[in-house]
Amino acid sequence: MTIWQLPSMLLVVISSVSTHPHHLFEYDELSQYVDSHQEEYVQTLRDWVAVESDSSDVLRRPDCHRMMDMTAEKLQAMGGKVELVDIGVQELPDGKTVALPKVVTAQFGSDPSKQTVCVYGHVDVQPAKLEDGWATEPYNLTDINGNLYGRGASDNKAPVLAWIHTVEAYQALSIDLPVNVKFIIEGMEETGSNGLDAMIVAQKDTFFSDVEYIIISDCGWLSRRPALTYGTRGNCYFFAEVEGPKQDLHSGVYGGTVIEPMTDLIGILDTLISPSGKILIPGIREAVAPLSDEEWKMYQDIEFDIESFKSKIGVSQLMYSNKVDLLAHRWRYPTVTIHGIEGGFSGPGSKTVIPAKVIAKFSIRQVPNMDPAVVKKQVTDYLNSVFAKRKSPNKLKVTMIIGAKPWLADTKHPLYEAGKAAVKRVFNVEPDLIREGGTIPIAKTFEDVTGKSIIMMPIGGFDDGLHSQNEKMSRYNYIEGTKLLADYFDEISLLQKVQDIFPSKL
Amino acid sequence: MTIWQLPSMLLVVISSVSTHPHHLFEYDELSQYVDSHQEEYVQTLRDWVAVESDSSDVLRRPDCHRMMDMTAEKLQAMGGKVELVDIGVQELPDGKTVALPKVVTAQFGSDPSKQTVCVYGHVDVQPAKLEDGWATEPYNLTDINGNLYGRGASDNKAPVLAWIHTVEAYQALSIDLPVNVKFIIEGMEETGSNGLDAMIVAQKDTFFSDVEYIIISDCGWLSRRPALTYGTRGNCYFFAEVEGPKQDLHSGVYGGTVIEPMTDLIGILDTLISPSGKILIPGIREAVAPLSDEEWKMYQDIEFDIESFKSKIGVSQLMYSNKVDLLAHRWRYPTVTIHGIEGGFSGPGSKTVIPAKVIAKFSIRQVPNMDPAVVKKQVTDYLNSVFAKRKSPNKLKVTMIIGAKPWLADTKHPLYEAGKAAVKRVFNVEPDLIREGGTIPIAKTFEDVTGKSIIMMPIGGFDDGLHSQNEKMSRYNYIEGTKLLADYFDEISLLQKVQDIFPSKL
Repeated sequence: MTIWQLPSMLLVVISSVSTHPHHLFEYDELSQYVDSHQEEYVQTLRDWVAVESDSSDVLRRPDCHRMMDMTAEKLQAMGGKVELVDIGVQELPDGKTVALPKVVTAQFGSDPSKQTVCVYGHVDVQPAKLEDGWATEPYNLTDINGNLYGRGASDNKAPVLAWIHTVEAYQALSIDLPVNVKFIIEGMEETGSNGLDAMIVAQKDTFFSDVEYIIISDCGWLSRRPALTYGTRGNCYFFAEVEGPKQDLHSGVYGGTVIEPMTDLIGILDTLISPSGKILIPGIREAVAPLSDEEWKMYQDIEFDIESFKSKIGVSQLMYSNKVDLLAHRWRYPTVTIHGIEGGFSGPGSKTVIPAKVIAKFSIRQVPNMDPAVVKKQVTDYLNSVFAKRKSPNKLKVTMIIGAKPWLADTKHPLYEAGKAAVKRVFNVEPDLIREGGTIPIAKTFEDVTGKSIIMMPIGGFDDGLHSQNEKMSRYNYIEGTKLLADYFDEISLLQKVQDIFPSKL
Repeated sequence: MTIWQLPSMLLVVISSVSTHPHHLFEYDELSQYVDSHQEEYVQTLRDWVAVESDSSDVLRRPDCHRMMDMTAEKLQAMGGKVELVDIGVQELPDGKTVALPKVVTAQFGSDPSKQTVCVYGHVDVQPAKLEDGWATEPYNLTDINGNLYGRGASDNKAPVLAWIHTVEAYQALSIDLPVNVKFIIEGMEETGSNGLDAMIVAQKDTFFSDVEYIIISDCGWLSRRPALTYGTRGNCYFFAEVEGPKQDLHSGVYGGTVIEPMTDLIGILDTLISPSGKILIPGIREAVAPLSDEEWKMYQDIEFDIESFKSKIGVSQLMYSNKVDLLAHRWRYPTVTIHGIEGGFSGPGSKTVIPAKVIAKFSIRQVPNMDPAVVKKQVTDYLNSVFAKRKSPNKLKVTMIIGAKPWLADTKHPLYEAGKAAVKRVFNVEPDLIREGGTIPIAKTFEDVTGKSIIMMPIGGFDDGLHSQNEKMSRYNYIEGTKLLADYFDEISLLQKVQDIFPSKL
């Protein structure tokens, strides 16, 4: 029997423990400390956002290394036991290799009488350029009406800093940390956490041996109501490359005689998905776990305003018109997105070129019970068969560069009960229990390798614009989020108290 | 009756006049002068190639202006009567305007007893970046084994310089120019000669009033055999823009709920052309003039090595396997090329974005009897109808940004007879009579507005890589081409002698 099967009586006990006066006093002190250090926190975030740690661009790799160093130095200065773990090299498409950003691990406290939690985050970012349509310089954190605009502000630099500031606050106030806290911060999340899986496997019996719970804040709320996240979609990211002539050709001089790679590529891309969003690759839809009545009911109860969602993204019509279908297709159905084509003429203006080699980038979000290895084969076989029908002399190469599994937690686990209590204290509301359409691949790896329980506790807002132009983190979410994490350490330590009372139950 | 309908006897007379001893002497002198100034010519080309006069990129507009100034200064220094003609502004998609590069006109000689020829050329270039796959810096002219690599070397800076050097050589040797020579040099050719049409119309009765013939060297040979060009395809260049959400979105967070503009765009692009090169837009193929038996025969006789063509561009298979079909589809049938997509993720690496607005760039080469105004309507109506079937809430906007007509000359015109004679003298072979798959829109405008006869006399090699990576001009073509042009002035002046003998015939 596990705690989340205990009768509700016990949850009342936990709840009463979590509001004992001493505990309340500490929270207020921490909360005031966080409020009074707001400007300092914003400045640190500004320093971090200024580092263009775009892990998808190897030319930015030095910035990624610098970002890891800065993270390590920050944790070191706080007295943590810090390591920069070498996780090897990345192989590039041309066969060359480049060093991966090291992983930062840190430890605060090793009291065997306390539980140990491990906080995961990343400090690499998605690409961003002013000309993509940013209103402000993406790497210059800019405060407009309490929103802090900058690439990586919400994904994931502010949340990582919030955890760090939480530990700092405890230290500054000489309040004993209620749990031992470990950090694992990486610099390759945005391109598939290359190298991290192997590192976790390697340190399973060392760094992770005493870790009880893993906490991730790499996601956002669904609405203005705080949320806890219990599932994420995985992602299989593909390159489909069609190569023809040995170099780009003038479309006037050669057009009509050459079988153009771009025409071939457009032809096969058009067979991935129907106008109504139906994935056409055989086997994909068949693998999806059916929607249960319980899930249906749960989705119906979630706070989600379709009109405000539409107006936020600026569209007149969505793929579905009712809440349950929309939530289900964000969270628990696969989808295909074509991100763009490399190698063609993609600048402004006109160019009369026949591109010699074009590479489409597309990805398929993964849900239970899809398996990336199977999806890889399904997509590759399908595109090859579609391409063969064109009888083109060009060469097609399909590569899966990311294959991240989906993740799903049990919302009745005590980690989630503790999360609900922390949200209740800081925001005075019950959190929504939500899933994340995006991918945090490492959740699944942590679960598979360490066997530990994982919770996702977002502090980012629902409208932070992750991966798009004008990404931001509000001061409100940054600061209240820091308080939430500060309280959460206490709430987790209560799990231990329950464990002490019912040692056989956990 | 026109001269090209005169009996062959007369052509014998012309031919004998063109080889009189005095004329031969001057040619040798000019030829030696050109040979001995080779390094100087290469250095001037290097200076011109160093100017990144990419007319498609408004950020490079200052370079375009500088290029026009340099051209004007060069002609001025030679004593020409030079003007920099203001042709107004260009309207950008965002509604702003930017000044067009001025057009340079120049005049050498105004002897009413001589005929006046006008040489047209352009000094703007296509975009080029080292990372596109250039072996050398595209704007640093680099000599490798007698080939001069650089963007714009062959298209069209070296040919323009060759004409200028020709006039210079006459001047340096104090040989009277056999004709009055005018120049018209523009800086917007690569993006559709914006503003030039109006300028030609405006100066029809001034600058062009005494012009008899217009000569263009903005093309290349078909093989190692020198050629004269008597036709070009036109081009209709389209932007198809699909706009959805108000900004880019995270494909994990929004994928499955949003109707993605990229999917819509791929869907409509895939309806333009079949895998076997058949244009699917209704009405396009119907407008094409049928291939005559005479044309078929002529194509059969042209020197064109399919295997070397294939090996040059590096493909194992072409759209057609016989010479006549290949030449016909290069020169006198329309074709669709999709150049690329703006607004998606087109960099290296991966990015999980749903692009909010994507713009496909494609163009359709024009041949007799297609009409760009009709094609614009055919394409727009067709894409709108295909798009409507998708029932997408996204917005499609189809724009034709270039609409250039095809051009076709009569190869029996005396201008061509003079060209054949000049080729015979310099290279000692008969030229191939060829067409050009690419577009020199201005040829058609000159013809329509001024009513004058036009010849295209290429000096670039067949493998110069116009509009692609590693564009080059060989020293051989640059220098022998200069000699060809020097002789051609003489050959044209002979037309006048014929005219003096048979004044009513021309």
